[in-house]
Amino acid sequence: MVQLLHTPEGVRDYYNEECAQKLTLCQKVRSMFQLYGYQEIQTPVFEYFDIFNAERGSVASRDMYKLFDRDGETLVLRPDYTPAIARCASKYFAAETLPVRLSYVGNTYVNNNSLRGQMKETMQAGVELVGDSTVEANAEILALIVDVLKNAGLDRFQIEVGDVRYFQGLLEESGITSEIAQELRTCIENKNHFGLEELLDKYGIADSVREALVRLPQMFGNPEQILAEARTLTSSTKSLEALDRLEELRKCMEAYGMDKYLTFDLGMLGTHDYYTGIIFKGYTYGTGDCIVFGGRYDKLMEQFGKEAASVGFGINLDVLMQAMKRQKIELPGRPESILLLYAPERFADAVSLAGDYRRQSISVHMVQETDGNLDRYAEYAKENKVIRILKINSDGKIQEYIPASRFDKILPCPESGR
Amino acid sequence: MVQLLHTPEGVRDYYNEECAQKLTLCQKVRSMFQLYGYQEIQTPVFEYFDIFNAERGSVASRDMYKLFDRDGETLVLRPDYTPAIARCASKYFAAETLPVRLSYVGNTYVNNNSLRGQMKETMQAGVELVGDSTVEANAEILALIVDVLKNAGLDRFQIEVGDVRYFQGLLEESGITSEIAQELRTCIENKNHFGLEELLDKYGIADSVREALVRLPQMFGNPEQILAEARTLTSSTKSLEALDRLEELRKCMEAYGMDKYLTFDLGMLGTHDYYTGIIFKGYTYGTGDCIVFGGRYDKLMEQFGKEAASVGFGINLDVLMQAMKRQKIELPGRPESILLLYAPERFADAVSLAGDYRRQSISVHMVQETDGNLDRYAEYAKENKVIRILKINSDGKIQEYIPASRFDKILPCPESGR
Repeated sequence: MVQLLHTPEGVRDYYNEECAQKLTLCQKVRSMFQLYGYQEIQTPVFEYFDIFNAERGSVASRDMYKLFDRDGETLVLRPDYTPAIARCASKYFAAETLPVRLSYVGNTYVNNNSLRGQMKETMQAGVELVGDSTVEANAEILALIVDVLKNAGLDRFQIEVGDVRYFQGLLEESGITSEIAQELRTCIENKNHFGLEELLDKYGIADSVREALVRLPQMFGNPEQILAEARTLTSSTKSLEALDRLEELRKCMEAYGMDKYLTFDLGMLGTHDYYTGIIFKGYTYGTGDCIVFGGRYDKLMEQFGKEAASVGFGINLDVLMQAMKRQKIELPGRPESILLLYAPERFADAVSLAGDYRRQSISVHMVQETDGNLDRYAEYAKENKVIRILKINSDGKIQEYIPASRFDKILPCPESGR
Repeated sequence: MVQLLHTPEGVRDYYNEECAQKLTLCQKVRSMFQLYGYQEIQTPVFEYFDIFNAERGSVASRDMYKLFDRDGETLVLRPDYTPAIARCASKYFAAETLPVRLSYVGNTYVNNNSLRGQMKETMQAGVELVGDSTVEANAEILALIVDVLKNAGLDRFQIEVGDVRYFQGLLEESGITSEIAQELRTCIENKNHFGLEELLDKYGIADSVREALVRLPQMFGNPEQILAEARTLTSSTKSLEALDRLEELRKCMEAYGMDKYLTFDLGMLGTHDYYTGIIFKGYTYGTGDCIVFGGRYDKLMEQFGKEAASVGFGINLDVLMQAMKRQKIELPGRPESILLLYAPERFADAVSLAGDYRRQSISVHMVQETDGNLDRYAEYAKENKVIRILKINSDGKIQEYIPASRFDKILPCPESGR
């Protein structure tokens, strides 16, 4: 019997205020997406494996939930939204030469090793700005993140921005092979300074790039300082172009009045291989996980048949909710309501009264009441945000009760209701 | 490449107005659920197979999408909401003796044979009223359906109500075995009159119940007529009790002023084995599939450890959307918006102007404009519900354009904007 009450590992139920607050958050996020001109798109929860396979550079195959069609085709539960939205943009907006703004709200599924206690079903909301290669498009994406988070009630957060081309430029300059590059990435991403030095010694990396690589794990913080230092460390055209774009991005964010939320991190190298330009992660207090992630992917769309430089982000709604809770930022949940008790023979009166309230957009719980023991409704009132209790007695008279202080008892009101 | 653009069979994408209208519909449904005191609950998309297995009486095992945990446990994509909500009610509201009102909005997955072209991922919204055995609870469920459908904009619909106990009473009276009962059910549900007569002959069913069984496929329509006829056809206590409850239900619906939406169908026997009392289906013009389904299930909850008589319904939102489209009932979709074009050097002005509009809750699409060919925005304006186009020229002047009739061309306005 106990087994029958459990959800599988890594997934959970949402109910009561938490669920209502999650819905409020989704609504707030959606309305901000709309103000920026994004239209929502809904894709199926499972797709052909090929949409997300290694060439696309999404989640590792072993971490995807797989299932099978009646025809034996391999399907996977969507591990990541970007390739699914890229597929849609190519299919439904193939001929569009102007930017296409798409948004989504839904769950993603990663069958990770649960040792770290990560959830396997996580709710994400995000946008993809397809077919716009400008720095201003990058800035719009970051500005939208800031507005979404502020609209949710959050104020203390940072968006850390890097650009994969800075590191790529360094690699190209030094002729480092992709295997070695992979080892370097791991050390840099983990900010493992000693491991990194060891690798650079082991592979005898040229001094011309060595200093820049050694500095990478520490190259995060104030945008202007980071850019100034980074410029002194390389002569790679690609790396320097990445820095120029970051400088332009900083100026654009100034135009939005949002540069205070921006920091740079050139040691951020990206988890998904499809990123080709800026990448970013957003952090706040109360959680070690990022609340926002994303980047520019100029080559992914053409794999689906549409050449379109694109940039997008996703918000980890569950992580954001958790952080907001710890920061004591309250989202509106369920509405306050009226509990309407009625004697069985007064059902028609109860229906009529409930209808009156509902037409005024007031939530009413109707319960048939026979035993006269009203104290049993005290706990119910508390759990259902009941602010007023009305009882229609068998003689048709309406008695009003108010949940007493801290809802331990129900007290009759001196005057009748209605 | 073509393969990369496809979704698996039986699932699809939603975008543009259709997706926006679907979201509006969900919002309308949710707000009505809330007015009746229901709180939303979100369960994981996959659960242990046992939650939905044959004992629960949900969808057939072969029609479920199965996948596997890292531990090798069999999981299924939720084929039906009721058992999942029953699990939650037992887990989170185990000690509650008062009615618990739960609602849900989400997708269900049935891996049906696709010959009939049915979708495999379908969106449902519904409620479960747990722990209330009264007829008034049944009426609340039907009244909520009526209010949800009317609030969505639908007016021409019928809810056909039966009660599984009428047929059960007939079977018990005649001592028919469950194998024969199954054959009879199929004929009755399919309104296959000749097949039914043949079976009754073949098994030599006693005359005392034969007439009632023969009449069952035709016993649908006006509630009072159906009840009057049904009473003459049986002396089974169980069957007669079912008719008494239906009569009470009819009166309750009168109290709601909603009896005109009600018809009875005693030949409706239910697809899910967990139903124990009334069952119902709602129909409208423009689709042969039911838009609403549900019933009373007084024994399901105790399988999860909580004894609680319950009743609930689900709405097939995709089918409802389709029917509303055919009835030309328009749901609000995306908002109208402003397209803001800007010369690259005027980005800061554009950000400022867009901010002004967005603070007034007006949706703005920002696009950098360099080539001066504005006609390319005609199609874009039409597809994105753009009602006004503003261009900030490099000299800082704002030119307003209006999409000309039928949006074939973009025309400059005589006066400047802002």
